[in-house]
Amino acid sequence: MKKILSVNAGSSSLKFQLFLMPEEKVIAKGLIERIGLSESIISIDYLSDGEEKTFKQTKDIANHEEAVDLLFKLFYILSVVKDSSEIKGVGHRVASGGELFPDSVVITDDVVHQIDSLGYLAPLHNPPQAKVIKSFKDMLPDTLMVAVFDTSFHATLPSENYLYSIPYEYYEKYGVRKYGFHGTSHSFVAKRAAELLDRPIEDLKIVTCHLGNGASIAAVDGGRSVDTSMGFTPLAGLTMGTRSGDVDPSILPYLMEKLDLTEVDDMIKILNNKSGLLGLSGISSDMRDVETAAASGNVRAKLALEIFVNRVQKYIGSYIAEMNGADAIVFTAGIGENAPNIRDMIISGLSWFGMTIDTVQNDTRKEAVISTEDSRITVLNVPTNEEIEIARQVERLGARTKISN
Amino acid sequence: MKKILSVNAGSSSLKFQLFLMPEEKVIAKGLIERIGLSESIISIDYLSDGEEKTFKQTKDIANHEEAVDLLFKLFYILSVVKDSSEIKGVGHRVASGGELFPDSVVITDDVVHQIDSLGYLAPLHNPPQAKVIKSFKDMLPDTLMVAVFDTSFHATLPSENYLYSIPYEYYEKYGVRKYGFHGTSHSFVAKRAAELLDRPIEDLKIVTCHLGNGASIAAVDGGRSVDTSMGFTPLAGLTMGTRSGDVDPSILPYLMEKLDLTEVDDMIKILNNKSGLLGLSGISSDMRDVETAAASGNVRAKLALEIFVNRVQKYIGSYIAEMNGADAIVFTAGIGENAPNIRDMIISGLSWFGMTIDTVQNDTRKEAVISTEDSRITVLNVPTNEEIEIARQVERLGARTKISN
Repeated sequence: MKKILSVNAGSSSLKFQLFLMPEEKVIAKGLIERIGLSESIISIDYLSDGEEKTFKQTKDIANHEEAVDLLFKLFYILSVVKDSSEIKGVGHRVASGGELFPDSVVITDDVVHQIDSLGYLAPLHNPPQAKVIKSFKDMLPDTLMVAVFDTSFHATLPSENYLYSIPYEYYEKYGVRKYGFHGTSHSFVAKRAAELLDRPIEDLKIVTCHLGNGASIAAVDGGRSVDTSMGFTPLAGLTMGTRSGDVDPSILPYLMEKLDLTEVDDMIKILNNKSGLLGLSGISSDMRDVETAAASGNVRAKLALEIFVNRVQKYIGSYIAEMNGADAIVFTAGIGENAPNIRDMIISGLSWFGMTIDTVQNDTRKEAVISTEDSRITVLNVPTNEEIEIARQVERLGARTKISN
Repeated sequence: MKKILSVNAGSSSLKFQLFLMPEEKVIAKGLIERIGLSESIISIDYLSDGEEKTFKQTKDIANHEEAVDLLFKLFYILSVVKDSSEIKGVGHRVASGGELFPDSVVITDDVVHQIDSLGYLAPLHNPPQAKVIKSFKDMLPDTLMVAVFDTSFHATLPSENYLYSIPYEYYEKYGVRKYGFHGTSHSFVAKRAAELLDRPIEDLKIVTCHLGNGASIAAVDGGRSVDTSMGFTPLAGLTMGTRSGDVDPSILPYLMEKLDLTEVDDMIKILNNKSGLLGLSGISSDMRDVETAAASGNVRAKLALEIFVNRVQKYIGSYIAEMNGADAIVFTAGIGENAPNIRDMIISGLSWFGMTIDTVQNDTRKEAVISTEDSRITVLNVPTNEEIEIARQVERLGARTKISN
């Protein structure tokens, strides 16, 4: 029996899924929240003798190390894992691999150090993720660990798409370029779309729309990411829950003067945390709240919704231009999977491109082709599953490095 | 005989054209450069008894007031104008009209004050332009003066396109929004394209590409600008001669630290003055130099050229998406009019959209349809003429305010 654990650590959270492989069956999944704050919350859904059970607890957890320790204790108590040697591999989601990691990688001490040192590209994510990886390595010193980077899928971007039009030396000396994020998700849904279309991904041009609280779009040509809307950081691109996406950079000094801010970092914080749907609507960063308010006539919520849709449409158009065509548009993530209304608004406004939504097929939250049969471009809804993609990467690298079952 | 003067003042320059209206015949045009610096240069091409002549002089001109004074003295000396009362109107190009001026306007003292007070939106342009207007008003106190704003044509942008996804109050309180620029040019070439297509502009969706040292693209739907690539300032959008266009705003604090800059304004200066084609190629901000270097194998020049083309293609795609279609793509301005090669690169990469360049027709710098007859979208080259558009605005407002000939 081979169990593989997929781990997604945030600055104060730890999400996980434990899979039975190669069946890809989830035998436990859960979340530890508010790590380092008071009253951390632990919740685990797990299978016990074939029955689905839930465990919940609230207690103080001082740091990620304690969280990892607690997680394994609970695994034993809940009989999810009887012996840690049953876990044959752990896959860790890592925010940024910079240019160092164009692919997932087996984690060594050097790799942990490199992940930490890439913190300048993802200050809120890479350093805590490096710490979590260390804790797991302490707990399971002989187990295969794999780092799966949010950036790796975009390592195939050509230089004309990843470079900004700024002095070239800033790329050479300081690594300023477009890295992109959500790569695991874009990769997963692009591959799944090709399967659903029953065509080799090498022959397909796909625009993947990962629309969640964070949102990004990728142009996937022949299975390779050639462009994506997030940039040097996850701030750029689409209108998001709290992030502005693209803005004229000249508004920074102008607003800093108006707001009496002396630190440009404070302005970036506003663009990251108080903008997007929240800043426009004044109501919420959650698209569900915005949709509800818009439906009941709130003008600014309606505006926020229109802007969200408009920016997605424009990126789709620009990526169709860049690839000189598209065979499929794929929606995924929180909004993409669960808001048929928004998918309808986006696609209905692109009829000139030969996309036609099938309103019956579109009324779903499940995997489906949602365009009509005669649509020139096929539109799909494909729920993402970054956790299973991470587990697959562990399998793939495990096979390559000949670590046995 | 009715003469109308079209004036375009920069921070250290003054460009003008004198037209005979309504024939739209140029009877004098010229440029005063290096105003306020040493050795200002004056050059005027003019008609004298039907013959084309040229006047050139180098002398120190301390400020725009002296420049205007000198200009009229030269008009008399060269017999371009025998009496200032022959000049029935003066049109002034003004960079920003903010939200105050959705149309050209007859200049009163209040208007001059308002143009000056909009300096916060165009600090390098509006204040000197207000001064130049004052000098002209002093010189010709009874003559019709009209301000023609670079932003007015974009006043029709819907709010979902002009708003940034930032806290809404920044728009309400501080006017942070997309204003756009090059409006006079976009308007001129869109109207001219409709004439050339022999179709009412109300029925047409046109993407106008003003590609010069400064560059912007506009989506013109039914004759109205609905979106444009420049933003709060002319920094945003395409890759330009020295301007970066769109970048992830997070690179600002990151680079400021690396470059040891404490003022965000210094970073914006780099994005305005040392970026774009110049920053990428390391060779020149002039596309002709970049093309030459690329043709002779310079890798970074080739890259700069590819990036320029890519960004134009992406904006064209996004505006076709936004308008849900396009009937025409129009090229204009320095690069747009004079670089058949670049037009070819742009359009050839968009064949999926049903655009096909006619390589024979495209080999021109003149007004022409440059796509094949069966091209789904018609592509045109339309040399811009902001000066004549400004003179026409003077005529239009002159007629409306019943100022006689």
